[in-house]
Amino acid sequence: MTTARQELRDVVEERVAAVRAMDPAPLAARLADDVVAFNVVPPLRLSGRDEVIAQTHTWFAAYPDGIGYEVQDVEVAVDGDVGFVSFLYHVSGVMADATAVDMWVRASLGLRRVDGRWLIVHDHESVPFDPASGQALLSVRP
Amino acid sequence: MTTARQELRDVVEERVAAVRAMDPAPLAARLADDVVAFNVVPPLRLSGRDEVIAQTHTWFAAYPDGIGYEVQDVEVAVDGDVGFVSFLYHVSGVMADATAVDMWVRASLGLRRVDGRWLIVHDHESVPFDPASGQALLSVRP
Repeated sequence: MTTARQELRDVVEERVAAVRAMDPAPLAARLADDVVAFNVVPPLRLSGRDEVIAQTHTWFAAYPDGIGYEVQDVEVAVDGDVGFVSFLYHVSGVMADATAVDMWVRASLGLRRVDGRWLIVHDHESVPFDPASGQALLSVRP
Repeated sequence: MTTARQELRDVVEERVAAVRAMDPAPLAARLADDVVAFNVVPPLRLSGRDEVIAQTHTWFAAYPDGIGYEVQDVEVAVDGDVGFVSFLYHVSGVMADATAVDMWVRASLGLRRVDGRWLIVHDHESVPFDPASGQALLSVRP
C-alpha cells in the first residue's frame, strides 16, 4: 500500500507545481474523461474533462502576476485501483481586477488507476459560508 | 465489485432516511473515529467523530419542523476496502428563526471498510460562491 499512497501524494505535489507554474497541461493530463467536479465557483457541478480544463484556464487568466499555492493536512486512503485524497490549500495573489486574494480552500480528490496511471474522476473544492450573512468565508484559517 | 458499489449506494440511502427522520444515530454509527469533514458551515475542517456528531445535532436542532432531503446524481467508485461517493442533495425546510431553506448542496464521501462495515473517513459538503459579490450561492439548481 505504501507505494500507491505515495503516488497519490505525488498527484497533489504535481498539482502544487502546476498551479505555481500556471501550467494547465499536467492538470489536464490527470483528469479522467468522465470527471465530475464541484468547484468553489459556479456551476454547481462540472461534468467531463473539457469543462474542468476550461475552468482551470479561466482561473489562471484571472491572475496575471501568478498564483501562490500551498497545501497542508494531506490525508490519503487507497486500495487497489481506487483512492481519495483530502487537503487544505492556501491560495494567494492579485487578480486582474486588482482584488487581493488570500484564501483557504478545502479540497477532496477521488482517483482511479487506469492502465497504471492515477486519474482524477472526482474533484471537490470549497469554502464554508456564514449562515447568518450568507457570505462565503474566504479567510477562515486552519 | 457490484456488491460493494451497492453497499456504498446503501450508505447514501441510509443517510437520506436518517436525515428525513432527524435521527442522528445511524449517521453517527457510520463515522470513523478519525473522520475529517469539510462542511457547508464553519469551521474550515472538522476532525474526529465527536465534532461531526455535534454539528449534526446542531443542524437538526435548527429545523424544528423537519428537513426535506433528496439526493441525485450519485456516482460511486470502489475497489477492495476503499471507495468514494459523490452526489447532489436538495435540502429544504423552515429554520427555528423562520428562515426558509431551499438549497442544493454538493457532497463527497470517502469510505473505508473496517471489519466488514463501511465507515465514512471523509465527508465534504459545500455550495459554490459568487466571486463578484462573495455571496454563497444557496439556490443554484442542477
